[in-house]
Amino acid sequence: TIDATKTADTYAPESVGTVMRDNFLAVPEEFTVAEATQFLRQNEIGQKSKYYVYVVDSWQVLKGIVPIRNLLTASENQKIAEIACPDVISVHVNEDREKVAQIIQSREFLSVPVVNDQGKLLGIINTKDILGIVEAEATEDFHKMASVSALKTSLKTASVSLLFQKRVGWLLVLVFMNIFSSTGIAFYEDTIASMVALVFFLPLLIGSSGNAGSQSATMMVRALATGDVKLRDWASFLGKELAVSGLLGLAMGLAVAGIGFYRGGAEVAVVVALTMQIVVIVGSLIGMSLPFALNKLKFDPATASGPLVTSIADIAGIMIYFSIATWYLGYVGMM
Amino acid sequence: TIDATKTADTYAPESVGTVMRDNFLAVPEEFTVAEATQFLRQNEIGQKSKYYVYVVDSWQVLKGIVPIRNLLTASENQKIAEIACPDVISVHVNEDREKVAQIIQSREFLSVPVVNDQGKLLGIINTKDILGIVEAEATEDFHKMASVSALKTSLKTASVSLLFQKRVGWLLVLVFMNIFSSTGIAFYEDTIASMVALVFFLPLLIGSSGNAGSQSATMMVRALATGDVKLRDWASFLGKELAVSGLLGLAMGLAVAGIGFYRGGAEVAVVVALTMQIVVIVGSLIGMSLPFALNKLKFDPATASGPLVTSIADIAGIMIYFSIATWYLGYVGMM
Repeated sequence: TIDATKTADTYAPESVGTVMRDNFLAVPEEFTVAEATQFLRQNEIGQKSKYYVYVVDSWQVLKGIVPIRNLLTASENQKIAEIACPDVISVHVNEDREKVAQIIQSREFLSVPVVNDQGKLLGIINTKDILGIVEAEATEDFHKMASVSALKTSLKTASVSLLFQKRVGWLLVLVFMNIFSSTGIAFYEDTIASMVALVFFLPLLIGSSGNAGSQSATMMVRALATGDVKLRDWASFLGKELAVSGLLGLAMGLAVAGIGFYRGGAEVAVVVALTMQIVVIVGSLIGMSLPFALNKLKFDPATASGPLVTSIADIAGIMIYFSIATWYLGYVGMM
Repeated sequence: TIDATKTADTYAPESVGTVMRDNFLAVPEEFTVAEATQFLRQNEIGQKSKYYVYVVDSWQVLKGIVPIRNLLTASENQKIAEIACPDVISVHVNEDREKVAQIIQSREFLSVPVVNDQGKLLGIINTKDILGIVEAEATEDFHKMASVSALKTSLKTASVSLLFQKRVGWLLVLVFMNIFSSTGIAFYEDTIASMVALVFFLPLLIGSSGNAGSQSATMMVRALATGDVKLRDWASFLGKELAVSGLLGLAMGLAVAGIGFYRGGAEVAVVVALTMQIVVIVGSLIGMSLPFALNKLKFDPATASGPLVTSIADIAGIMIYFSIATWYLGYVGMM
């Protein structure tokens, strides 16, 4: 859980300033170890999150950091500035909170000081706060992946009207994208009318294309969010995705060829298996590439949601299916 | 990142034992504060994660905990056992790692001691480790939500054959689920043949049902994973989901009524709008209920993936659409 401090509303949304805490211990750089220890004893309130003493100058500018246990091992008359580590890694108050999560995770810190443009110490962020941030960011990505706008509140307390607003936008966008699928179907109405059995395989084929695309997109969105994969890795993933989806398409094509043969004979089996092979590859490549493209265009990669990828894969799937059917069945018919 | 200690392979998968660290400080209960401080000075190695001193008896059984800063404020001759907090919250070495994440998040700890059946102190888990666990668990849920089996490795280093194995299982299961959709279509082949224009709206209607269902399922899976929603909350969500999806269905029904009228006149407009209203509600209720049902049956709620919910919603959507079409168009035809 993230503590909203009293200053929360003066900083940018999702910035460090909105989640930092002000219960840190700061001592002037001219203090001795004995004076710092004395100061520590007098400030027992909220002690639970105090594991460091920050050293500041008279303008409150952060000069160093002393882990409290080092006060135990130092001699009493030493200046605090002498035992302080001067190279403090700090974050700017306007920095995005997700960045801080990455900084704190990549190092052995338990908390990170927050400073302004002048280097003045304003607060701290500790690992507990980061936990809250990581969870909140993951929840936001989960919702985006299902085409729900960021909810920000508990699902339990969210009102009907709020939930409606967060869901209706993308659903309407997706309806209008699906019209392209429908238009594709209308375009091939003659093929369909001449062989209604083709419609039997429609949910199966475009469903598989969308499912394979969702898998690729989700894995890529998550890998980009955790930093496992970087934008520059796109090209190297393309070959791998082609290989994986080629094998998937082969397995799925074989699986449906039998059903195709049973329902419509050898011609339908060929059309269905060939279509499956191609739509699984195309769906996967769309799903894999869309998060990269969105990231490149400065959108959140998580916008490449399952439903969005599925809708795009559907359109491609319908065109591929009926093109192959029209071409192959026409070709067979002529023989 | 989670440190795998040398004992990692002797504990259950995803248990606390596989992620705990052994760089803790433990002192015998008969030590004085001065002796403990002395001990601390002599054990500077790996000091960065040492914020507590654990107090143990001669069998290494955990007896209490002393925050290191309390050594500063205690008098030198006090027994360590006197200043120790005796009610230590510890976790069992075989406990699921996800449970520990919830314990540490709900309290102000920075680390939690790990014990065995006899209460013997075996290691510690700190907030940094928990961060790694929370991220890994979220990634696992992301993948499950897209019908990918848990990957466990970096996407970047995963081989083609591993990725194929993790994806093909669910894709094949979903293909065979889609056969139900296809069978539904085959069942209504006469209705379709008599009015091929109906196929035009098929992707749009069943797509919307699946999208609404994905939204509901994802929000519910995530809320169950973070503890925002509990199993007993199902009934209270049912009413809210009905209200939200009713409104969504209304908005989407109105959006497609115009297209229906344009493509096929008043009858088609009525069928399409009515179907949309119903399938959005049904899809949403399926999506919302499936994670609860899976949880109740001791499955991971995240198994209620977008593609699975979409496939089930598709079957329901097709049956609803062609039932309404057959009934209404037959009824209109008789007038």
